[in-house]
Amino acid sequence: MLFLTKNIVGIFVIKDNKIIDKHLFSENELIENYVSLKNNLETAEEKRLKEKYKDAFVINVNSSEKYKKMASNILSQYKERARQNNIFLTKHDLKNITPESILIIQTIDAIDEIIKSVNLLAKRIREWYGWYYPELSFKIDDNVLFLKSLTTKRKESMGVAFEKEDVEHIMDFAKVVLRLQIKKEDLEMYLTALMKKFSPNLLELAGATLAARLIKIAGSLKNLARFPSGTIQILGAEKAFFRFLRTGAKPPKYGIIYEHPFVQKAKNKGKAARKLANKLLLCAKLDFYKGEFIADKLKSQLEKEAV
Amino acid sequence: MLFLTKNIVGIFVIKDNKIIDKHLFSENELIENYVSLKNNLETAEEKRLKEKYKDAFVINVNSSEKYKKMASNILSQYKERARQNNIFLTKHDLKNITPESILIIQTIDAIDEIIKSVNLLAKRIREWYGWYYPELSFKIDDNVLFLKSLTTKRKESMGVAFEKEDVEHIMDFAKVVLRLQIKKEDLEMYLTALMKKFSPNLLELAGATLAARLIKIAGSLKNLARFPSGTIQILGAEKAFFRFLRTGAKPPKYGIIYEHPFVQKAKNKGKAARKLANKLLLCAKLDFYKGEFIADKLKSQLEKEAV
Repeated sequence: MLFLTKNIVGIFVIKDNKIIDKHLFSENELIENYVSLKNNLETAEEKRLKEKYKDAFVINVNSSEKYKKMASNILSQYKERARQNNIFLTKHDLKNITPESILIIQTIDAIDEIIKSVNLLAKRIREWYGWYYPELSFKIDDNVLFLKSLTTKRKESMGVAFEKEDVEHIMDFAKVVLRLQIKKEDLEMYLTALMKKFSPNLLELAGATLAARLIKIAGSLKNLARFPSGTIQILGAEKAFFRFLRTGAKPPKYGIIYEHPFVQKAKNKGKAARKLANKLLLCAKLDFYKGEFIADKLKSQLEKEAV
Repeated sequence: MLFLTKNIVGIFVIKDNKIIDKHLFSENELIENYVSLKNNLETAEEKRLKEKYKDAFVINVNSSEKYKKMASNILSQYKERARQNNIFLTKHDLKNITPESILIIQTIDAIDEIIKSVNLLAKRIREWYGWYYPELSFKIDDNVLFLKSLTTKRKESMGVAFEKEDVEHIMDFAKVVLRLQIKKEDLEMYLTALMKKFSPNLLELAGATLAARLIKIAGSLKNLARFPSGTIQILGAEKAFFRFLRTGAKPPKYGIIYEHPFVQKAKNKGKAARKLANKLLLCAKLDFYKGEFIADKLKSQLEKEAV
């Protein structure tokens, strides 16, 4: 059986635990592939090797422990080179990041992780409270509204007979989860304030969370400002993009910018995404080079060009 | 390529998207396999088919989407039978569960999910605050102590220059995560009170969280009281147990009861786990049949028998 694995040193084709073909990254390639490594993008060399070894089983984060161990055994043959490449990329990282980029990326990551936690805990509360009053969960789909209705109203139970004290424990738990939700809303306001100082054009055109996610995926505002607009158009849709490269399926027309109202409202969403990505790139460039504020004009231009 | 998949209807061996061998569960088997289905245990029939088709690739929760889709296509051929088996198991569930079992299982699940969330969010805060004051994270390993020290002390920064306001956002975030941690401690006390009423012997011998986890994995106190003590000994180590069945690797000597101080302190941990499991089973039986409270005596017996 053939296996293919990619790591910080290069791309390897493995048969019977031996490397039968490989491509080692040069330092130049590492920089070129900087975003690709960080975001698990497919590079040209990787595509070439995957085509050459069509039957190879690709070892990735979803593979079983056994295969991941095989992949790490291969990497251990290149320990020193891996160390050097890591140092090289970290230095590159530090050169390209500013305190503002750090704060924006940390804040959007915190927001996303609070969303995950609130969902996890709200699901638990739904199941728990569902034994006592099953209908409420069906009535209210939105997690935050569900938690709020649970903390404010006392309903007659139709389910299992819990004691008053038992129900109060669930309600108090819901209050703590709501406190976490309020923190998320605080952080969204803080993120908006950060973006206003640091990247006002991008904020105006994309809104705080979408703009921050674009900066996060790119690694920094500097990286984002240097991308081709076609890359900005599909940032966040890497999976679909590789499927396109590998299998010839349709290429993705949009990544996370799909959530922007201009794309949402458009009939031709692909065309809208392309137009929006062009203007987002312009905003990123203006913000990175401390140019003037014209995003309000770009926004009204876009609204006239609805597709 | 051969595939093997198990679902609520039975066990199937697949070749070229066709079923070439199968074992359908009878209702009796469903009850017998009740815990096995819930906890992904391996049954005798499954073992037999795995031995017969040694090369078969087992499709499970860790398999890629493609294989999982193949498995669900097979299941869709038995839709009506799946529906009936589901109803049957749910009825069985409802017959065997009491309000106390529900509360205990929900509370321990809530505690475990709060632990997960606190870890996720504390990791984020470590990374975020680490840019400002990198040393603190290395100094304090424990997440809760780390969050506490962050909310009480103001340190001189050695890292990136954040504004005072930026740091305050992190500190306030840490406070909210600590509030969640306090809720976890509340729920642990509540769990102890529930166990005291419902399962005093098991509480005395195992402590609240371990006892609750045993009840949770078993599905109810009733199920736990009916297990052989060898099953209690390895509850929570199902993965290692299947590896033993499949590959002849060493069988596991203990499951989650490993965390019990009696096993922790023992030199011969396997023997200690067997002794403890015997006494835990006795406690579960006494509690389920509302017998007398003797766990204090069992506990001092155990202490004398240290192995």
